[in-house]
Amino acid sequence: MQVTFLGTGGAVPTTRRNTSALMVRREGERLLFDCGEGTQRQMMRFGTGFSVSHVFLSHLHGDHVLGLPGLCQTLDFNDREEALAIHTPPGTKSAVENLVGVTGARPGYPIRVHEVQPGGIALREEEYEVRAFETDHRTRSVGYALVEDDRKGRFDRERAEELGVPAGPLFSELHEGNAVELDDGTVVDPEQVVGPPRPGRKIVYTGDTRPTGATVEAADDADLLVHEASFGEDRSERAGKTGHSTARQAADLATRADAKRLALTHVSSRYAGESDRLAAEAREVFDDAFLPDDGDGIEIPYPDG
Amino acid sequence: MQVTFLGTGGAVPTTRRNTSALMVRREGERLLFDCGEGTQRQMMRFGTGFSVSHVFLSHLHGDHVLGLPGLCQTLDFNDREEALAIHTPPGTKSAVENLVGVTGARPGYPIRVHEVQPGGIALREEEYEVRAFETDHRTRSVGYALVEDDRKGRFDRERAEELGVPAGPLFSELHEGNAVELDDGTVVDPEQVVGPPRPGRKIVYTGDTRPTGATVEAADDADLLVHEASFGEDRSERAGKTGHSTARQAADLATRADAKRLALTHVSSRYAGESDRLAAEAREVFDDAFLPDDGDGIEIPYPDG
Repeated sequence: MQVTFLGTGGAVPTTRRNTSALMVRREGERLLFDCGEGTQRQMMRFGTGFSVSHVFLSHLHGDHVLGLPGLCQTLDFNDREEALAIHTPPGTKSAVENLVGVTGARPGYPIRVHEVQPGGIALREEEYEVRAFETDHRTRSVGYALVEDDRKGRFDRERAEELGVPAGPLFSELHEGNAVELDDGTVVDPEQVVGPPRPGRKIVYTGDTRPTGATVEAADDADLLVHEASFGEDRSERAGKTGHSTARQAADLATRADAKRLALTHVSSRYAGESDRLAAEAREVFDDAFLPDDGDGIEIPYPDG
Repeated sequence: MQVTFLGTGGAVPTTRRNTSALMVRREGERLLFDCGEGTQRQMMRFGTGFSVSHVFLSHLHGDHVLGLPGLCQTLDFNDREEALAIHTPPGTKSAVENLVGVTGARPGYPIRVHEVQPGGIALREEEYEVRAFETDHRTRSVGYALVEDDRKGRFDRERAEELGVPAGPLFSELHEGNAVELDDGTVVDPEQVVGPPRPGRKIVYTGDTRPTGATVEAADDADLLVHEASFGEDRSERAGKTGHSTARQAADLATRADAKRLALTHVSSRYAGESDRLAAEAREVFDDAFLPDDGDGIEIPYPDG
């Protein structure tokens, strides 16, 4: 699972940081979180590929969504046929439909807009789900947690052989969780040869928000928390007033959630040229905090390696 | 007068060429022609400044207008107060208003949308006007010609002194076109000391279009014709079908119009990496044709130096 930071800037882009977008690639599938103006070109520049299956919008401020109509148009020029799903906060479906159709273009593939419910499941797939959680901005907003299912426990091949299980289909049966009977009538239970389920990975993306308890819950033990950090401590009052967070608040929250890593994003253009300061403020509280540049990508390993 | 090519790509941007936008700076004023997605960031990258007074839209396809809402929002973040005028083809005013307000944001400065009439004057200022002319695309579209007024003729200071006119206010009177009477009763007419009016400059921007007679007329003797050249000769049939031009057609037109220079733009992403070919095809017909890169700027001198 790979995360690419397509846009790490705040409401106003800079030459270094574009407006918000985050790409998650998992087993060949592409999930896009927010889609600020110019996101399609960031995707080209950073080589993430274009075949996005789901877009998750945190809220409808321009710096998070204005890249959508252009992206939808380019997918159409690329002769896309499969449907594109757009997930969006409660009460914003018609606004998203208006946005996507704002130039009157009608793509040749279906675009389906789904309103998500904070606390609910936005997307359920075979091996993972995307949950929406409540955030606290100045408009209808949610955050998203991509949570993989537990994987099967490790299969102890040596132990299975000791118990007389022949290599082959019976191994798979046991690994799937079914008991098997050997030729001599012995029954082997899966618990004897399969370890406990191993946790999947979790990535959490907040969009714009003040620090919230729901984010702490959602980010519990997350492998990566991508939290907005619009401001430094010098503007903490402004952060509260405008529905944003400081880098230090994001780090406090990562600590409370016991997240493994914290990526700061949505950095205000006021910090152009001195954004390292924000990362430093966060690291005073939470060791593994970093401020990615546009185009940076990181691999999310399984917790058990 | 300076022209900056902010976006020279076609409907789909590439890493090298963004979607359409052209900035003209004249005596401290900024006029923007079209505003594709990401234009605000191109303005930052190429240092053209932000205080645009007028935006002229050639038509409402996404690659020409999707940068508008983000630009309007950023101007608002910059505490702009003066009105922004947006000029747009007939019948598209409400679509532009919907686009500008698509995220629900209400800027703190007025945005005024004016429909232009092909063959009419979109903007009249003290020293120049912007005329709209008919183009031929697949939707309501116009091109624009920025035409400076004639400047006063050269004042022949030597001749005036010979005629006994004292240096000072009488020089200005004569240069303004008024006759003056000297102390000895002699009357000096302006024609005696002021040369013929000197032509101003003319820049023509087509937007997307097949070659048209109206463009030839509008570009008559233009100092710079910025003509779309979506395709090369290999796709001339496609150009015609989709309402576009080839580079060679643009060059033919520049020849017929007796334009001084031809800038090709709106190059299809199909020519990524081989766009020099388009410039070469144009130069077979018209010597001073060139294909600018994003960010290239050129100075437009007065015809008489």
